[in-house]
Amino acid sequence: MIVVLSGGVGAARLLRALRVVNDPRTVTAIVNVGDDLVMHGLSICPDLDTITYTLAQLNNDELGWGLRGESWRVMQELEAIGGEAWFALGDRDLATHLYRTQRLSQGATKSDVARELAVHFGVLESIQPVSDDSISTMFDTEIGPLSFQEYFVRHHHNVEVRSLSYVGASDAAPAPGVLDALSNAQRIIIAPSNPLISVAPLLAVAGIADIVRSRRDDVVAISPLIQGAALKGPADRLMRELGLQASCVGVAQYYRDFAGTMIIDELDRDRSNEISELDMQVRITTTIMANDQHARALASEVLK
Amino acid sequence: MIVVLSGGVGAARLLRALRVVNDPRTVTAIVNVGDDLVMHGLSICPDLDTITYTLAQLNNDELGWGLRGESWRVMQELEAIGGEAWFALGDRDLATHLYRTQRLSQGATKSDVARELAVHFGVLESIQPVSDDSISTMFDTEIGPLSFQEYFVRHHHNVEVRSLSYVGASDAAPAPGVLDALSNAQRIIIAPSNPLISVAPLLAVAGIADIVRSRRDDVVAISPLIQGAALKGPADRLMRELGLQASCVGVAQYYRDFAGTMIIDELDRDRSNEISELDMQVRITTTIMANDQHARALASEVLK
Repeated sequence: MIVVLSGGVGAARLLRALRVVNDPRTVTAIVNVGDDLVMHGLSICPDLDTITYTLAQLNNDELGWGLRGESWRVMQELEAIGGEAWFALGDRDLATHLYRTQRLSQGATKSDVARELAVHFGVLESIQPVSDDSISTMFDTEIGPLSFQEYFVRHHHNVEVRSLSYVGASDAAPAPGVLDALSNAQRIIIAPSNPLISVAPLLAVAGIADIVRSRRDDVVAISPLIQGAALKGPADRLMRELGLQASCVGVAQYYRDFAGTMIIDELDRDRSNEISELDMQVRITTTIMANDQHARALASEVLK
Repeated sequence: MIVVLSGGVGAARLLRALRVVNDPRTVTAIVNVGDDLVMHGLSICPDLDTITYTLAQLNNDELGWGLRGESWRVMQELEAIGGEAWFALGDRDLATHLYRTQRLSQGATKSDVARELAVHFGVLESIQPVSDDSISTMFDTEIGPLSFQEYFVRHHHNVEVRSLSYVGASDAAPAPGVLDALSNAQRIIIAPSNPLISVAPLLAVAGIADIVRSRRDDVVAISPLIQGAALKGPADRLMRELGLQASCVGVAQYYRDFAGTMIIDELDRDRSNEISELDMQVRITTTIMANDQHARALASEVLK
């Protein structure tokens, strides 16, 4: 069994790459819920949905998020009547949020819903929220406190962040099966997701960090930064703003207690000594997953 | 000023008819909220929306409910992933529910939202929920207790009803302005809506029945039954099941304490004596509103 500590897009692409070399039924994604929000009364779980859609091969490559073949009738109408339309919800995507919200109102958990949606979308991997309890990543910024989606979508992560907090994480219980999966996994992979806003809220849930630390020899982390820059999103900027080095070395420093092995991109080959000095093994490969061959190379390295 | 005690479709058509002979800015619709529901986390107010859509001339005449030019992408997708799709919500219509739910979550009241939507949709009448508090019309039926929409939509009002209750009504406060509007109106009209499930929940709100009774001489009720049958919906069947006479006379008996005048259809001309005996004035006209001429005739009779 393989466990992947997962954010959204980067994790989804890694999970898809793993399929090339590995039976998906042996893979469990433990997914961040710190970005989750209630909007228009709807319970929205962006990371869970990104992973489900990507593994169902329904992801929208043009947008980089959401579902392919999407339409926008509801949002257009909402905008026309003066509603809040800054958080774009496609018509297909809305069906997922209606489904989840209705099931939660009937007493189902986020884990139940994630499992049901995986079945409906024909996904064989186990997709599991880290917790069924509420966790909210909050940003203290130069313009005041912002929720995740206010920071990320409304302000296009273009404001300076002073600190982060993962509200509710320390009181949140790991979802059923999460601790067992981590204890029993042959390999734990920290996906190339944003360390501070995708992986940190996972590690902040009671009990998770302790188990991952105890499994350090079996934990492989993939740097989301290449030559100091994130492929997508604000990981580099955020790390700098919060006093970390914005590079694969900074990522390694951040994960050194949790991961025995760090995978970095070929373009960062010259940084491998700095990471070795952190008592981490270093593996070097292409990490961009730009095509199937590269994805296979990364997946093979991760599972080696 | 004219006040119309309103359910959904029948009231909407009457309000539209009144425009032909009367300035819409002098009309206040006080609208039933006993059909309101939360579905998929969304706050849905069917009667308020039917009236707003109809007065905005956006009502869907083919369906008899909802918006014209409607599309169904979200519902199709919801059904495809195994969601509850028995309560059909069109894509345009969903925008209204997202808007309302978001505004309520921000602390707005149903009255605020009704007013905002009326402005957005260009409606000049004042559209006012009878209460900002929650009222739920519940059906005790041969197959057990059902909510309004379970009875009406899911079971197509095709089960026997033993009793009705308007849960929350006696504790609900009239929305701001409702009692004043009733006190000050020149004329109060009871729309040709279902007496038991559209008008009764209005009258059950604390204070409303007393004021309407005290204004009896200025209250005109329009029978929704013609020759013992409802144009639409289960009014006739329900009246029978609950021990009332399913006819304009039964409607008059039901309203006799509230309305000094009863308007019945020409086809019921032979019942007028029975209604006069209830100490009500009777006016006879066409009540179907099948075309503009008929609508004008009814509106004139109502305001005479």
